[in-house]
Parts: sequence; structure tokens; C-alpha cells
Amino acid sequence: MTSAAQALPAVLERIDADLDKSVERLFDFVRIPSISTDSAYKDFCRAAADFVAKDLASLGFAAAVRPTAGHPVVVGKSNGATAASGGPRVLFYGHYDVQPVDPLNLWSAPPFEPKIDSLPDGRKVIHGRGACDDKGQFMTFVEACRAFKAVTGKLPLDITMMIEGEEECGSKSLFDFVRSNADEFKRDLALVCDTGMWNPTTPVVTTSLRGLLYEEVVITCADRDLHSGVFGGGAANPIRVLARIIAALHDENGRVTVPGFYDGVTELPADIKAELKALNLTAEEFLGQVGLKVPAGEKDRMLIEQVSTRPTCDVNGIVGGYTGEGAKTVIASQASAKISFRLVGTQDPAKIRESFRKFVRERLPADATARFTDHAGSPALAVAYDNPALGKARAALTEEWGTKAVAVGSGGSIPIVGDFKNVLGMDTLLVGFGLDDDRVHSPNEKYDLTSFHKGTRSWARILAALAG
Amino acid sequence: MTSAAQALPAVLERIDADLDKSVERLFDFVRIPSISTDSAYKDFCRAAADFVAKDLASLGFAAAVRPTAGHPVVVGKSNGATAASGGPRVLFYGHYDVQPVDPLNLWSAPPFEPKIDSLPDGRKVIHGRGACDDKGQFMTFVEACRAFKAVTGKLPLDITMMIEGEEECGSKSLFDFVRSNADEFKRDLALVCDTGMWNPTTPVVTTSLRGLLYEEVVITCADRDLHSGVFGGGAANPIRVLARIIAALHDENGRVTVPGFYDGVTELPADIKAELKALNLTAEEFLGQVGLKVPAGEKDRMLIEQVSTRPTCDVNGIVGGYTGEGAKTVIASQASAKISFRLVGTQDPAKIRESFRKFVRERLPADATARFTDHAGSPALAVAYDNPALGKARAALTEEWGTKAVAVGSGGSIPIVGDFKNVLGMDTLLVGFGLDDDRVHSPNEKYDLTSFHKGTRSWARILAALAG
Repeated sequence: MTSAAQALPAVLERIDADLDKSVERLFDFVRIPSISTDSAYKDFCRAAADFVAKDLASLGFAAAVRPTAGHPVVVGKSNGATAASGGPRVLFYGHYDVQPVDPLNLWSAPPFEPKIDSLPDGRKVIHGRGACDDKGQFMTFVEACRAFKAVTGKLPLDITMMIEGEEECGSKSLFDFVRSNADEFKRDLALVCDTGMWNPTTPVVTTSLRGLLYEEVVITCADRDLHSGVFGGGAANPIRVLARIIAALHDENGRVTVPGFYDGVTELPADIKAELKALNLTAEEFLGQVGLKVPAGEKDRMLIEQVSTRPTCDVNGIVGGYTGEGAKTVIASQASAKISFRLVGTQDPAKIRESFRKFVRERLPADATARFTDHAGSPALAVAYDNPALGKARAALTEEWGTKAVAVGSGGSIPIVGDFKNVLGMDTLLVGFGLDDDRVHSPNEKYDLTSFHKGTRSWARILAALAG
Repeated sequence: MTSAAQALPAVLERIDADLDKSVERLFDFVRIPSISTDSAYKDFCRAAADFVAKDLASLGFAAAVRPTAGHPVVVGKSNGATAASGGPRVLFYGHYDVQPVDPLNLWSAPPFEPKIDSLPDGRKVIHGRGACDDKGQFMTFVEACRAFKAVTGKLPLDITMMIEGEEECGSKSLFDFVRSNADEFKRDLALVCDTGMWNPTTPVVTTSLRGLLYEEVVITCADRDLHSGVFGGGAANPIRVLARIIAALHDENGRVTVPGFYDGVTELPADIKAELKALNLTAEEFLGQVGLKVPAGEKDRMLIEQVSTRPTCDVNGIVGGYTGEGAKTVIASQASAKISFRLVGTQDPAKIRESFRKFVRERLPADATARFTDHAGSPALAVAYDNPALGKARAALTEEWGTKAVAVGSGGSIPIVGDFKNVLGMDTLLVGFGLDDDRVHSPNEKYDLTSFHKGTRSWARILAALAG
């Protein structure tokens, strides 16, 4: 038995005893409004990076805030602060940036003034932007390390930390950063805490992530806004042009119509499909929590396929013309939309981007032009089922939660994880404690106190198991 | 010969001599940001009403700012200040409110700091929001009255002024106001200065106006914004729902598909159509000025029909989801659009409103609901060709401009004018001096100094002709 495994009971006790203080540390982190997608918050992103670096240094990591073309990356290396172990050298990846908070008026309390709330069903939750995604999740790993350090004086494994600040806007700078410093980050296994549980009592090891292609298109017609009384009927209207293009993106069965979109999408093996079916995800259970009733995706697919293993296309935002109070009889010069695609299997984001742009251009009437901005493009990822770390993590999670950990695909995307496989040649163990009602990316984001507490305990168990 | 006609040469001289001061008065008026559609500007609308009332009082009108459910109406009555005349008692209608100014960054100078600019072709123009629509236009009539008052000591006709503050948001309160005070406003003829010239040298008497139906629709799906990584593929997306509805509003030939929409739309008489054709409005001439080339309306119609005598449907604004900088992977809870219809003939706004709402509701998928707001609804108007005032105005305009005045329909709408016919039983003489490049409702609105000067002189001639 290794020292990490021997120390585990004391480490878990330490986590329990330190819970209040660990919540306070998370609060301090959440108070920094590190919104990466809006350049007005640039300095706060830097402040969040500094916060992380300082905290990692206090655990014995050699920590540095390292520049990129965008927001900086915090790198921490355990080096000499590590106990002797036969376990893998791990790269832990997380992100200190958070989603924008609009519409602000829908928050029940200020997003960057975290607090403990009680839900009607008695659950205690941490309320605030980033409480879950990814500050709360990422801190479960840090707090597990802190407990090991307190009990044993050392970290249980050789750990390299890579905490970035652009996950919520596509991790653009991180791709170059990883390629340029591949030797530093090429370890035996990557760990990520940015995924969810199956339900509040059933832990998950996530075995696949969808990729993401995110495009913005601006349609321009006239060279100025026009009066619809003068030009209405004669002038091209970019909102109408855009609406027709968006309407054409799906057929009547919910399939995406962009040519070649489904290239690289394979059918699930029968046994995996049977496992998914056995999870019996109902519309009532999954969609009911947000006021919906009917799965809106491909008509011939189970809901769990629609949201996890099938590719999608969604419009994330649209704007054009007069959007203020009341009426204005204008025909806008421009209209724009943000359109994203979730990818699976071996779908190629670059090819789909080109096909999408062609699709749009082919539908432009006379006098309309389109301008595109590429916000993100990353392929999907599947984790090798035969990696021994996967089995160890499932066992550790099952022990902590008392319910068998399941292995399922996630509908979300973590852009950089594909490169851990493709560039650094290592598998990624995806373990997280988010819940479906966490409202990540929405007003009133929260993280269950149980997720934070037992998540920290789960990482302690996983680290001990990997070290053994 | 009446005294008004005898006085005309001196009145015209007075207008010429007073031009600089009349421009200063218009500047003072334009400086008041009386945006009626945005409640934040309520006090400025009141200030504009006070400005008008004070100015009318200085000309001998008994003037009052009278309350409505919305912005007030300025009423002025010439009463004893009128010269003896065999002419009609007239109701002059104008509006002191202006369009919003967004996007502000496209203005070359602040919209409420009016100034004289020179165009590359040498034309002098008055730059500012409302410089044309309708402050500059309405003041041409006031300045003509002022010159008569200065020269003769009296106004040339029995004039009632009705200057409202809600034209740019549908004249909602004015309909009740006119009905409740019909006896005051039922005169022999209405005069309006809110229309345009055929080109910078050819004056127009406008013989028809399109009606306007303006609806806002909000589509709601989930009860909160969702993360597209969690719900993408399974959750209904209100932007996609709205885009499909908008795309369905027109067929491939540009015809509106709302059932019953064309009820009451009649074909033009052959001779009128021939007159329109003879005007030879080319796409190059009309659309070229705003960077467009190809008429975008009903494919089997002339451009001049598309923009003046045919009904239309346009989307004036759309918004939903994330519209800030960068990317956010959200599926919005709501999306909304402002959709307006220009009406002709005897199209019934109430029936079309119901048909449109049914059209939308029939296209809502499961989990989507629609909420509607009615911003305006007024029928189209045609002026009787045999009203003698029309011939007198054409002759007066022809004399002033040296080019034969034409009689054509306008594509725009002035909501209240229908009620002048339907409720008050009088025809309306529509004479205005706007030009196609005035950018009304757009950034950098302007009014040619020639329009302002010769427009004032034109009204002096028309008033003299009517008095005779």
C-alpha cells in the first residue's frame, strides 16, 4: 500500500474539517468577474489568474502566470513537492474564466457576490457565476491536493496544473500554447473536472465530449438603415435573408442540412446504445426541469442521443434592426447571428466551417453579402474504454457516493481536450460533479455544496487510487 | 383678387429675407431630442410641445398643449387672427416627435446639434434628427404663416393646427383625441407636410398613403437560458422557431403568405399605371443611392409599385440570445421580432392582425408560445382626385419650382390621415419637400436648405391660392 492510500482516511477527515474554509476560498475566487469573452473584463481575468497562481504556490507548486495571445495560462508544477509514487504523471486542466452574466435582471442575487442558498428540497447550494463552471469544479481538485499536502506534507502524484482563461470563448490561445510547450505538458494522463453527474446521487466518468464549431455571420444589404415607408417592398432586408438561411439549416425531421455535415458520424455500437437506453432519460425528467416537454432534435433519435452523442446546430444569438422599446419603421442595413455546431465522432470542424459558409453564400439573394467570424472549432473526443485509470476512477467514485458510477458521453465541449489526445498523445479522465439544474451559462448559476464537498473527497480517492 | 394673393409677392420677399432666422428657429426645435418611442425621452417630448405652442402663440394662434394618454397634442386656432377669405377652413397636421437615433456611432455629428453641411454636389443641407421628418417639413408651413402675419398682420385662412407627439410610434393617443374632439377638428380640408418630392426639382402632391400594421412577437421556449452543451439537440430554440416563421411570411415570388392579406388590394387603373410607368423609376436611380441594385419585392411588379402602391411585410427588428462580443454557447429562452405591414386599398389592419397572429400560432412547435404586442394599425388612404384644392396646389407648386408638379402615391404611412377622411369627413392635401436621400429614420438625417426655403415659399403660394 502506498503512502497516498495509507493517508487517505486522514485526508478525507481533513477535507471534512476544512469544508467551511474551502468554501470561503471558493467565494474569494468567484468574486473575481473573470468574463473572458468580453474585453472589458480583461483585468479581472488577469486577477483570477493571479489568484490561482498564488493558491497553487501555497500548496508547493512552482506556479507562474504565463502570457498568450489572449488571456494568460496559469501553469503549476509539483516537482519536488511530490511523494514517491508508481502512479502516472498527470496534467490537470481547468479554467478560471466564466460565462457572461446577461441578462443581469434575472439573477436573484449579484452574480459575483457568492453566497450559500437553500433550495426548496433542502439542498444547500453555492450561488454565483462560476460557482460550478469551472471555479467550483476545478477547486474540488485543488482542495483535494491541499488536504494531501496538509496531512502528508506532499502531493500524492507528479502533477502539472494548466488553468486557462479562454475556455468560455473557444480556448483559442491555448491551442498554440500547448503545441509550443508540448514537452512540458506531455504527461501520462490528463485529468479534467468540468463535467457532470448523472443525477445528484450517481457519479459519472465521461467517456466522450462533443466538439464545437462556432461561427458568426453578418448579413449586409443596403449601406445604411432605410425607412420602410420609402423603401419597403423594394429593398432587400437582411433580417429576412438571415431568417431564411437559419430556417434552411434543418429539415422537417430535425436533421442538419449543411452538405457533408454527417460525414464522420457513426452509429453507436449496439451494446452502448442499449446501455444508454437502459438509463431511461425521459423528457419529463430532463426537459421538465426547464419548462419543456418535447425533445426537439432529430425525430428518430432518443433524447439522450440528441443531447450527448448526436451532432447539432443551434443559433445562440441573433440581432438586427430596431430592438428598443416600441416601434420603428426601419429596414436595417445589417443583421447578424451566432451559429454553433456540436460535433461527434470524426466530424471535421474545418470542413464543416467551409461547407456552412458555402451554404450561406449560396442562399444570399442579390444585394446581400455575408461576413464570417470564426469563434471556435474543435473536434469531438472519445476516451479509450481500456485505459486502466477509467476503471480506478469508477471504483473510487462508487466508493465515495455509494452508487455505481456510470460511464456516458457528454453533450458539452471542452475545446482543448482533443489536443491532449491528438497533440500530446494522452487520454483524459473526465470526472465532474455538476448537476443538470446548475444553470451553468444561465442566470443563477449554482453548485451543490454536496458536489463541492464530496467532489473534493472523490478526487482524494481518485488520486490515492492512481498513486497505488 | 383677395388680400392674400395681393400680399403674396411681399410675403415671398419676406420669406427670403427671413431665411437665416427661420433656420435658427428650426435649429432650436431640432435641439430638443423628442424621441417618442422611448419613454426615457418623455420630458423632451413635452419640451418640444411647449416649444411649438409658444411659437404658434407668437403668430396669433390661441395655442394650448393638451394632454392625451400618451404624449400631448399641441392645438392652435387662428380665430380672430384670420383675414377675411372665401377659402376653406383648414386643419394643418404635423408632428413634433422624431425617430430614435441608434446606431449613434454612424452619425457624422451629434443628431441633436443641428448644423448646415455641404454635400459633394454643392447642395446645402440641415443635418440632424428631425431636420426633415417632421420638424423641418412642419416648420415650412409655420414659416409661411409667419411671413403672412408679418406682412399682412393676419393669417391668410382660418387655420387650426394639430401637432402631435406620437407619429413615430403609431399615433395611438391621437385617434381617441380626434374622435373625442371631432367638432373642433372637422374643417373643410386637412393639410399635411410630411411627404416628399419626386426628385430635387420636381414637386409632388401625394395622392395616396399606405396604411401600417406593426406587430411585435415574443417567442418563449424554455423558462430560462440553457447551455447548448447540456441541452443542445434536445431543447426547442426560440430563435430557430422565429426564423422559420419569418422565412414563411413570403413565398418565392415575394408575395406575402398570410391568408387573406391581399383582400382589398385592387389593381391600379390602366391610365394610372401608365403614368407610373412613364415616371420610369429605375433601380439604379432609386436603389443605387443606398448601395442596392435589384428590386426585392413582388417579382411581377414595377419597382415604383413595390414601394408605393403594393402592400408589403418587413421585419424591422429581431433579437434573441447572446448578442455581445465573442461567443456564448447559450440556447435562449426567448426571441422577439418587430414585424410591420404596409397596407393599400381597403386592406383591413384588424383582420390582417388576426390572420398574422393565427399564422404565427399555427407554426409554433411543441414547447413554444407566442406573445403579441400591437404597436400600430391604420388603413391606407387615397385622396379624391377631384378635390379642387389638389389642382390649386399643383399649380402653385409648379409656379414655385418651375417644373410641373406630379401626383403620385406614397409608400409611407401617416396613421391619423385615414381618420381625417373616415371620422372627420374631409380630404387631405399632402404636400412635402423631403428627398429620397434625406435619411429619415436613419443616421445623418438631413433636409435640403432648398427644400426648407422653397417649401416655405410653396406653402405661401398654396395658402394664397386656397384663399383666393
